[in-house]
Amino acid sequence: MTSVLLTGFEPFGGERVNPSWQAVSLLTGRRRDTVAVELPCVFSRSLVTLRDAIDEYRPELVICVGQAGGRPDVTPERVAINLIDARIADNAGSQPVDVPVIPGGPNAYFTTLPVKACVAGIKDAELPASVSHTAGTYVCNQVFYGLMHLLDNDFPGVRGGFVHIPYSPEQAARTTAPSLAVHRAAEALEIIVDTALSVTEDLATPAGTLH
Amino acid sequence: MTSVLLTGFEPFGGERVNPSWQAVSLLTGRRRDTVAVELPCVFSRSLVTLRDAIDEYRPELVICVGQAGGRPDVTPERVAINLIDARIADNAGSQPVDVPVIPGGPNAYFTTLPVKACVAGIKDAELPASVSHTAGTYVCNQVFYGLMHLLDNDFPGVRGGFVHIPYSPEQAARTTAPSLAVHRAAEALEIIVDTALSVTEDLATPAGTLH
Amino acid sequence: MTSVLLTGFEPFGGERVNPSWQAVSLLTGRRRDTVAVELPCVFSRSLVTLRDAIDEYRPELVICVGQAGGRPDVTPERVAINLIDARIADNAGSQPVDVPVIPGGPNAYFTTLPVKACVAGIKDAELPASVSHTAGTYVCNQVFYGLMHLLDNDFPGVRGGFVHIPYSPEQAARTTAPSLAVHRAAEALEIIVDTALSVTEDLATPAGTLH
Amino acid sequence: MTSVLLTGFEPFGGERVNPSWQAVSLLTGRRRDTVAVELPCVFSRSLVTLRDAIDEYRPELVICVGQAGGRPDVTPERVAINLIDARIADNAGSQPVDVPVIPGGPNAYFTTLPVKACVAGIKDAELPASVSHTAGTYVCNQVFYGLMHLLDNDFPGVRGGFVHIPYSPEQAARTTAPSLAVHRAAEALEIIVDTALSVTEDLATPAGTLH
Repeated sequence: MTSVLLTGFEPFGGERVNPSWQAVSLLTGRRRDTVAVELPCVFSRSLVTLRDAIDEYRPELVICVGQAGGRPDVTPERVAINLIDARIADNAGSQPVDVPVIPGGPNAYFTTLPVKACVAGIKDAELPASVSHTAGTYVCNQVFYGLMHLLDNDFPGVRGGFVHIPYSPEQAARTTAPSLAVHRAAEALEIIVDTALSVTEDLATPAGTLH
Repeated sequence: MTSVLLTGFEPFGGERVNPSWQAVSLLTGRRRDTVAVELPCVFSRSLVTLRDAIDEYRPELVICVGQAGGRPDVTPERVAINLIDARIADNAGSQPVDVPVIPGGPNAYFTTLPVKACVAGIKDAELPASVSHTAGTYVCNQVFYGLMHLLDNDFPGVRGGFVHIPYSPEQAARTTAPSLAVHRAAEALEIIVDTALSVTEDLATPAGTLH
Repeated sequence: MTSVLLTGFEPFGGERVNPSWQAVSLLTGRRRDTVAVELPCVFSRSLVTLRDAIDEYRPELVICVGQAGGRPDVTPERVAINLIDARIADNAGSQPVDVPVIPGGPNAYFTTLPVKACVAGIKDAELPASVSHTAGTYVCNQVFYGLMHLLDNDFPGVRGGFVHIPYSPEQAARTTAPSLAVHRAAEALEIIVDTALSVTEDLATPAGTLH
Repeated sequence: MTSVLLTGFEPFGGERVNPSWQAVSLLTGRRRDTVAVELPCVFSRSLVTLRDAIDEYRPELVICVGQAGGRPDVTPERVAINLIDARIADNAGSQPVDVPVIPGGPNAYFTTLPVKACVAGIKDAELPASVSHTAGTYVCNQVFYGLMHLLDNDFPGVRGGFVHIPYSPEQAARTTAPSLAVHRAAEALEIIVDTALSVTEDLATPAGTLH
């Protein structure tokens, strides 16, 4: 039975791969309670695809994953904001600036994943992780905000959130950016899935940032 | 006539100075339309002091400034979130974790400063700047959120926002962190003040982040 | 000259009236040294409105009054705690649970009203009264705690406290709960005002509870 | 190995028994990881006896239990206040009024027991329970406050709290007050012990009171 929907993105910004989709595929390939869906990096289609997947699979948990080139660790996101401000065009050539994800929606949604427990679990496995307080203003934040809005309005009781992962070594080879092997990212995502399925109350340990 | 209230913070986290207060003092010392107030780095008192200052000076513009040790540039903040998660204790020894700034308040407020025009102006002056989408989860974010809540509820028409500035060279000397001279930070703040006083519609240029 | 600020609440919890506002209005209508302000039963706005009223009227005494449906007597409250745990949503639909009134504030404040002298005075007038040691964890306690925090930080010398009153007969008609006529509650509040204005040291008689 | 210290009180107020000591004795008689100590209902000696017991047994958990004649259910207490106001004399004839438990101590301490999870567990066993927000101002509150002060200052990591239980049927027979059989109270206390040993984060469900 499927209980967890994981999503990754198609490549964007000139990349040939997107490690979020690679890691999600790897994980769902070995766990029968999960299913993976690839989201287009296109503002006008990403949330439609996400909605269709939730309608089809009726999961109890949704974890959307995206690539955060330059970040050194796996970062569960805490807050999604109702703002799109695209630094580059999406894969359909659209570059919306200063528009809301959902007109009239609340300014922000907080994740319903136990992000602190997830980070603690990943660190216990000796993989790098921290809680992030910004998912940016591009398609990742759009999907994160759109997911939380959807769950809040239409799927009561279904929990969800967003996780950013670093470049893969393949991508980082051309830069000085840090990277994480795709199979290690998949391990981290599995810890997040298991933690989210078993933990309802997050840890009360500090995980904030000073700025 | 005073039309602009600027606030800086007292030192915290073991520092002997706080460049936000130094820069704000420097700027207000030479502009008669501004006034400076120093905020305590204490969760239970920061918003009380801010409120008192607004009540006393009745400004048309409020810009709160804080130190962001490690950031390389001047960063006007775009969004304040209704979350406190203190990584370290405040100056009164209190370390609240996972509590809202204002119980029952909206999840976030967006700044009413023209942050893109401010960043463009600072860059024109050959000083480093960018828009930030997270003010953290400490006293800076508390003050930013509390300010926007106050203005939204009680002072219609008054605009406000928050700006983070880097360490001063004096502070950074002990670390490998980037820094900005206090008088250069004061120049950047003056550009922000002038821009906010003269610009009502922000630029429509992209200034977002991919993550 | 106004020297006493009294506040009551708007109706909440499905009621059409709130006897706290009715009684406070009745009392201030006949005493020129008092003024009444109605507080919203909304966590995010109650303390803003209270603060505004104190700023405007600069009273020497502040007495906030609330409805305690089910209590049989007028109960001056002795202690406010730094905790919100809303059993029902407020009038804006918000239901915060286990968050502090003031992050980083002290765990509790004691009233600065002479509650024992007030109770003695009310009983002398053959009205029912007792000292209460819990104001609950809803908007009443939030307002009580927020008031004491405000007075303690910003208005030295101004005394204040909170009083709960029973349902009005109109409300109680639908239940088996006890009630007190609004004009009798107003009499009790007037005794509290007069006592607080004239007594600085409270009585030393026992008024505690065994549990 | 002893990991849990339970305390009950000696009889007071003219009673011949105290169900808190009866229930605690019953429970510790069948659980080898617990130990019971009887506290005197004497302001000048209660905290000395409690301190001695903690020093001797070095428990990881301390649960003090008291009788709340008139209450219909088992009530884990959420907050202890720094106030003694004795309605009746203690067993040594002393009746302190309006004095602090610990001079200079904070105004209140919150329990470190997961009171909501405890209440949920007791209700699951079809026994009556609710969270209480006042432990009164007598020896029970003194012991609760003194316990939390002691743990906070001298025994970091040790958790503790206070639970009130109803009259026993034997006591209630002379009154119209509700009662709970001692062996049923002992069952409820065992659920509290097990819950506190296994749960570190309390439930986030509402359990507050409107007044």
